[in-house]
Amino acid sequence: MIGVDWGTTRFRAFRIAHDGAIRDRRTSQRGIMNVPDGRFGDTLREEIGPWLAAGEEHVLLSGMIGSRQGWREAPYAPCPVGPAELAAGLSDIGFDWARVKLVPGVSGQDDSGIAEVMRGEETQVMGVDPLLRDGGIACLPGTHSKWVRVRDGRITGFATHMTGETFAALRGHTILARMMRDGPSDGAPFDAGVMRSADPGGLLHHLFGVRAETLAGRLSETDAPAYLSGILVGHEVRAALAGQAGAVVQVIGAPELTALYAKAIAACGGFAERHDGEAAARGLWKIADHASWS
Amino acid sequence: MIGVDWGTTRFRAFRIAHDGAIRDRRTSQRGIMNVPDGRFGDTLREEIGPWLAAGEEHVLLSGMIGSRQGWREAPYAPCPVGPAELAAGLSDIGFDWARVKLVPGVSGQDDSGIAEVMRGEETQVMGVDPLLRDGGIACLPGTHSKWVRVRDGRITGFATHMTGETFAALRGHTILARMMRDGPSDGAPFDAGVMRSADPGGLLHHLFGVRAETLAGRLSETDAPAYLSGILVGHEVRAALAGQAGAVVQVIGAPELTALYAKAIAACGGFAERHDGEAAARGLWKIADHASWS
Repeated sequence: MIGVDWGTTRFRAFRIAHDGAIRDRRTSQRGIMNVPDGRFGDTLREEIGPWLAAGEEHVLLSGMIGSRQGWREAPYAPCPVGPAELAAGLSDIGFDWARVKLVPGVSGQDDSGIAEVMRGEETQVMGVDPLLRDGGIACLPGTHSKWVRVRDGRITGFATHMTGETFAALRGHTILARMMRDGPSDGAPFDAGVMRSADPGGLLHHLFGVRAETLAGRLSETDAPAYLSGILVGHEVRAALAGQAGAVVQVIGAPELTALYAKAIAACGGFAERHDGEAAARGLWKIADHASWS
Repeated sequence: MIGVDWGTTRFRAFRIAHDGAIRDRRTSQRGIMNVPDGRFGDTLREEIGPWLAAGEEHVLLSGMIGSRQGWREAPYAPCPVGPAELAAGLSDIGFDWARVKLVPGVSGQDDSGIAEVMRGEETQVMGVDPLLRDGGIACLPGTHSKWVRVRDGRITGFATHMTGETFAALRGHTILARMMRDGPSDGAPFDAGVMRSADPGGLLHHLFGVRAETLAGRLSETDAPAYLSGILVGHEVRAALAGQAGAVVQVIGAPELTALYAKAIAACGGFAERHDGEAAARGLWKIADHASWS
């Protein structure tokens, strides 16, 4: 089969054997925002044409390709959701050259009953075996980080944190912008920001401390972005792990980002296990395994 | 005497009698950012000329006029600071047509030892009699809200929260911008945001809820800004009052803003007493009373 994690900015395709092994992979910048005039079918065929020619027939797509801005809007499957429920919610895109199906998004609510939706993360979560087997918590960091709760092989609830986007807005559009220059995102300033997030006073006060520390000469312009990032990630992780000291968190995403979150999770009393974006391939394979292709 | 609260965007002058009564007042938009070519002396004479002609000689200036971007940089007086210490730290601006002095800013640190500075707020705090008499907490809301602790008639420490500026950055430069239109800042959506700030999950998660609630049709585009504002103010107030249930907070500032904060403080278990910006006049009078004009 062919599994595609088709997001806003990136296209990642996997050719997957019957036993789940990845036989081949392709990555391009042809995320849905970079596909002109809705030419999703042509784009897909160009990307995976050689695998189709080699005999693959079944194509499963997950991610923002199933959003209103994508190829076709796929429905949301309500929590609790596992591979079987996602397979039952697949929608067909008919072609003469392949059987193409869209994975549904997932709808749920946070612990306070506020509505939540995701699209793409559910497939990555399905690809992390220990989560489905033992239950637990997944964290998918990014512009809109997702914290996902899994029990008995199914997603039972999740919460989104606007961390990455808040960082960009503060970095670019506040007084902090004037006292920052791009620097390394990792290292001691990030750690210091994570530690700062444990102090009293709250996030809005800690943000102003970036300015105070820079004015006081204790923080350089190039270290300030990592310090700000540490403050925000620290607040996210602390809030997400509140009352769950010692929790094991499966962190899924790009290695440079999961490394930062793993450090923050450890500093906040949790234990992190890291997984890269190929979790999507395994998730797609598991969903396909439950699907009817007839 | 003449007291002037000269900020970034506004100029507010008071003619004050010996007993502290305000005899006259002038307000204009000639804040330091609106004074061209550093013509602060000419601006001041134009604004208060009639009072000088009527015999006033002593002029006391507080606020951003004493910053690097203002007329002349006034030093910071270190905490603890009361009217006597501020009077001892006055700096002269020599003129033939009046005796003009600048009130110093105040430097201190928050509860975690992070450096803090203020310029102008100290004078407003000095103008609130119950604070100097009994001690307590002051809140001066705004772009950079200040929470000030007063004991034995002096400011002992303070903390800044980047609430107003964070609101503007989120309102204008994130995905939330697309789902908002200007609406009333007060009312039920603000209250709902303050309540939301008490939920688990943290600020970065609550921010995303603005989107979720809008998408779910439970929040209108014109109510969304007040809801966002309530979330941010609620988080600020909750953090500032942590461990101080039942505290009385003297809220100082423009009436529309102190009304919002008073509601949030009450919702977070505190008691608010409101004061408008004329607190600055009383503070200037008290500082002048300790000053040597010889």
